[in-house]
Amino acid sequence: MPRTYVMATRNAHKVEEVSRILAASGADIELLPLPGEAPDVEEIGSTFAANALLKARSAAEFTGLPAIADDSGLCVDALNGMPGIHSARWCGRHGDDRANLELLLGQLAETPAPRRSAQFVCAAVVVDPSSGTEQIVEGVLEGRLAEEIHGEGGFGYDPIFVPMGEQLTTAEMSPEEKDAISHRGQAFRHLADLL
Amino acid sequence: MPRTYVMATRNAHKVEEVSRILAASGADIELLPLPGEAPDVEEIGSTFAANALLKARSAAEFTGLPAIADDSGLCVDALNGMPGIHSARWCGRHGDDRANLELLLGQLAETPAPRRSAQFVCAAVVVDPSSGTEQIVEGVLEGRLAEEIHGEGGFGYDPIFVPMGEQLTTAEMSPEEKDAISHRGQAFRHLADLL
Repeated sequence: MPRTYVMATRNAHKVEEVSRILAASGADIELLPLPGEAPDVEEIGSTFAANALLKARSAAEFTGLPAIADDSGLCVDALNGMPGIHSARWCGRHGDDRANLELLLGQLAETPAPRRSAQFVCAAVVVDPSSGTEQIVEGVLEGRLAEEIHGEGGFGYDPIFVPMGEQLTTAEMSPEEKDAISHRGQAFRHLADLL
Repeated sequence: MPRTYVMATRNAHKVEEVSRILAASGADIELLPLPGEAPDVEEIGSTFAANALLKARSAAEFTGLPAIADDSGLCVDALNGMPGIHSARWCGRHGDDRANLELLLGQLAETPAPRRSAQFVCAAVVVDPSSGTEQIVEGVLEGRLAEEIHGEGGFGYDPIFVPMGEQLTTAEMSPEEKDAISHRGQAFRHLADLL
């Protein structure tokens, strides 16, 4: 019988991606969306892991179920690791993917190719209120920022991120190709092993 | 007789502020603006000092005069020191002060007061082609970011920067009050001692 977890996010892209990764990993898990009436969580942590924990604890407390959460972002070396935990609201508003990545391209317009290295980072956590356990794993995908937007797939900064050794952005890859190498794929496969 | 220097910037605010600081320091210096036909400089350095040197060397080479330059910016701890050297084009366009600081306020909208610490940093350099000397000094002003815009004075991020121990932003201070403590005041008074 599958074990039921609540996924502590309101981002439909993330639910879809994490469900896909966990299903492909063979984990026998039923993933429920966060109830609409669950409280908003202030992501005031200063690391991906801290913010993922804040979201998972809140969802577990509200539902009584074990909760899965992730916090992830793009860390650009030329910006000292920013946008980082500020990735989702880099343009000053939450969740405007297009404005976020256009801003980033503008900020780096004078930054030449050798200095456009970046990493996608994902912290994935599971908080189980019945046992009181909290587990945290991380995944990292190294790459570089393209000069222009390429591709329609994925979400967030995918259209400007080219993984190391690749020519295509993660928005130009199939979901399966992306999951096989992505920060979120790495983190949630690791988490599936722990569940 | 005053010694003549060229000031390697197209920012009229900076020429005014540096002229004021050098005059107040008693330095016997005539500061010429950068000729309009001087080449644009790509600020590709990764530090304030490197970018200031690029600008001063270019102005000295073009005019044959000793050249003074500064590169300065706002380093926000919660953003790992960014905007930093990207301060002037943080919004993706160069020199739109209002858009730059509104973006920064939006990015930090969820960052509480204890984590809004920041520094204004200025690297000031003089490059003298006749002697082949290059001198670099830095000034730092510690402070914090306000939640809202206050004041009409200064330029750049002045309307949201409150120096440590103060209640007013540097945009609410008189030019003399600001110069007495500012990163640029510190750096150029030090430079005046060297000239």
